[in-house]
Amino acid sequence: MAVGNSPFPVMPPLAGVRLGSAMAGIKKPGRRDMVVIELPASATVSGVFTRNAFCAAPVTVAKAHIERCREVRCAPRYWLINTGNANAGTGKRGLDDAYASCRALAEEAGVDEHQVLPFSTGVIGEPLPMERLLAGVAPACGALSDDGQAWQHAGEGILTTDTRAKGATLSVALSGGTVTINGITKGSGMIKPNMATMLAFVVTDATIEQSLLDQLLRDTVDASFNCITVDSDTSTNDACMLAATGSGAVVQSEADIALFRNALQQVMMTLAQAIIRDGEGATKFVTLHVTGAQSRQEALDVAFTVAHSPLVKTALYASDANWGRILAAVGRAGVEDFDVSRVVIDLGDVRLVEQGGRADGYTEAKGSAVMAEAEITISIGLGRGEHEATVWTSDLSHEYVSINADYRS
Amino acid sequence: MAVGNSPFPVMPPLAGVRLGSAMAGIKKPGRRDMVVIELPASATVSGVFTRNAFCAAPVTVAKAHIERCREVRCAPRYWLINTGNANAGTGKRGLDDAYASCRALAEEAGVDEHQVLPFSTGVIGEPLPMERLLAGVAPACGALSDDGQAWQHAGEGILTTDTRAKGATLSVALSGGTVTINGITKGSGMIKPNMATMLAFVVTDATIEQSLLDQLLRDTVDASFNCITVDSDTSTNDACMLAATGSGAVVQSEADIALFRNALQQVMMTLAQAIIRDGEGATKFVTLHVTGAQSRQEALDVAFTVAHSPLVKTALYASDANWGRILAAVGRAGVEDFDVSRVVIDLGDVRLVEQGGRADGYTEAKGSAVMAEAEITISIGLGRGEHEATVWTSDLSHEYVSINADYRS
Repeated sequence: MAVGNSPFPVMPPLAGVRLGSAMAGIKKPGRRDMVVIELPASATVSGVFTRNAFCAAPVTVAKAHIERCREVRCAPRYWLINTGNANAGTGKRGLDDAYASCRALAEEAGVDEHQVLPFSTGVIGEPLPMERLLAGVAPACGALSDDGQAWQHAGEGILTTDTRAKGATLSVALSGGTVTINGITKGSGMIKPNMATMLAFVVTDATIEQSLLDQLLRDTVDASFNCITVDSDTSTNDACMLAATGSGAVVQSEADIALFRNALQQVMMTLAQAIIRDGEGATKFVTLHVTGAQSRQEALDVAFTVAHSPLVKTALYASDANWGRILAAVGRAGVEDFDVSRVVIDLGDVRLVEQGGRADGYTEAKGSAVMAEAEITISIGLGRGEHEATVWTSDLSHEYVSINADYRS
Repeated sequence: MAVGNSPFPVMPPLAGVRLGSAMAGIKKPGRRDMVVIELPASATVSGVFTRNAFCAAPVTVAKAHIERCREVRCAPRYWLINTGNANAGTGKRGLDDAYASCRALAEEAGVDEHQVLPFSTGVIGEPLPMERLLAGVAPACGALSDDGQAWQHAGEGILTTDTRAKGATLSVALSGGTVTINGITKGSGMIKPNMATMLAFVVTDATIEQSLLDQLLRDTVDASFNCITVDSDTSTNDACMLAATGSGAVVQSEADIALFRNALQQVMMTLAQAIIRDGEGATKFVTLHVTGAQSRQEALDVAFTVAHSPLVKTALYASDANWGRILAAVGRAGVEDFDVSRVVIDLGDVRLVEQGGRADGYTEAKGSAVMAEAEITISIGLGRGEHEATVWTSDLSHEYVSINADYRS
């Protein structure tokens, strides 16, 4: 299942950026499961990673290699991604395997080992099948290409339980010329990113110096990938990468930074929302908009408490306007000194709750009409401050249980 | 579904305590849905209630009436419980209705209004059907009796989506004579009690002064009802009541307090675990035991993070030893400066994780054998301190989704 029609977009080529993929048979044969993304030597690269303490070996190695590249002032040149195995919970052997994968690609491509960043996604706790993985490096490199199909194949090659490839592209006119941002992402379950998402790879041909790129990535991830949840489970492998190839216009003036930031935010948002639209078993795409909070954290706490409530999620699945469950979730969100008589809750444009109870004029028919839609907005006004937050989530369906009970993912 | 065989016990009568129930047709006809519990004038009464900010009208009224009784030094004499409607999210009208219910029973029984404590459970946000509820007061009072069947009928009369009545009884020999503790509880979904449980009513014939009774209730609830979760949703109506009728032995000496506390803890534990065994859609009864934490809160955080993980819960449902999901949940539990190489995780007596990865000697066959059981213990050693916590939970099944998607509860 998936909500909304989001075909993979046609990605314009970016100078110096090539993508290659292969079927390495990491988990099962006949499936694109290894992707190599090549960046030019002029690129700056930023990454944000999971805060899960049991972070995967590739996360540790990618961070170390980024660090090393910055020390010796060279660019990370390759992102090596495999699906079918997360290389997480694999102890020392996992680290050895991640380093060995980078080494293999570095030799193939003629760069230093630390110029390769590894990413893995799939089952946790199994050792990487190194023989098959290493055998896939050469064919993936042989397939490197800068055309739109290469982007689409890369989008397909990083999927796990996702039902479709997810991409976004946007071009924006800056003072020095038009730049383009292309991005792909994957993720469907174990989605509650914390400072990152499952996996996202975004590349622009703009020229952006390192500290600004870092800042742009953090800011836009905070309002996109860090605001989605399928099932509250933060993954061990979350990573969101952003590269600026340096072949195009420079992002430096305040006006250009603002233009670029908006475009980047839109790409990040589209990718993040694509994960929710393709959330495991999703039949609804739900926007939670909390306003009137004393802090952004308070607004996020309320939004995520509602978004994680199994009772709210099953009511959404059933298209049942059981708003008492929303109210109960708001009430347990840990807001201090909470005057619930000031809370208002709207479902779409239908007022559900005011004055601590059901709103005057609310009828089951009105609520049910909104609930019947596939895309639903729940707005919660706390009436105690000026801060707000928006979070996107999916529902909890029989299909979600089937996907996670019937298959080892 | 339900896990484990727990028939309703035969409850010994307690002097001065009578129970009556009626079929008032509050939600549907032909079902026991109203219960009155009568206490003697010599009783001391304690209660703990939900911390949900949207607490139900009866919670507000019960607290106010307990306060009033303490001011004027009289005993709360009646607990009036209805199922089928939670009287939560009902604003001012809900408060009026709760007070009116107390008034009706007070008139019928010849006591003051504040000597009646109201409790409601069921759908949130609908007004109480007052005509039917008030009409049920006289028949429920007419049925008052102190025999075992009255306890069982009361146990049945407070259920919502529960599949069976839940009771516990224990007698303990104190220096001044043997005292008995009888308790009933209800709850199956919207279960993540915070300072209380869905609804529990416990009565002893011991003589216990107010402040000691308050303390005993708080202590024993903390290690029982506050350590269970079905679905992370703290209810608006949670309440756990404890009455000591004052007809039996006095609990005062240190030795007697210890004996009584242990017995009370056992009753609370049996009742709390009965809720998990009857958790909505439950096919597994799962004990999470976290040790080696720097504080009890840290141990509870880890235990509840694992217990709430939809991915862990669906793996339990599938009897799939997908231990990577347990590891990922531990890793995202928010433990500061977490050295995961010291973490050990056991499934039953099978070591899953050590040294940051899969334990030597672990095999899928060993893990699967434990997972096939209906009662499973997951032990997590954090290796960083002396504190521990135990939490009980159930799995996430198709039946859970059906119960909450197909019916308005």
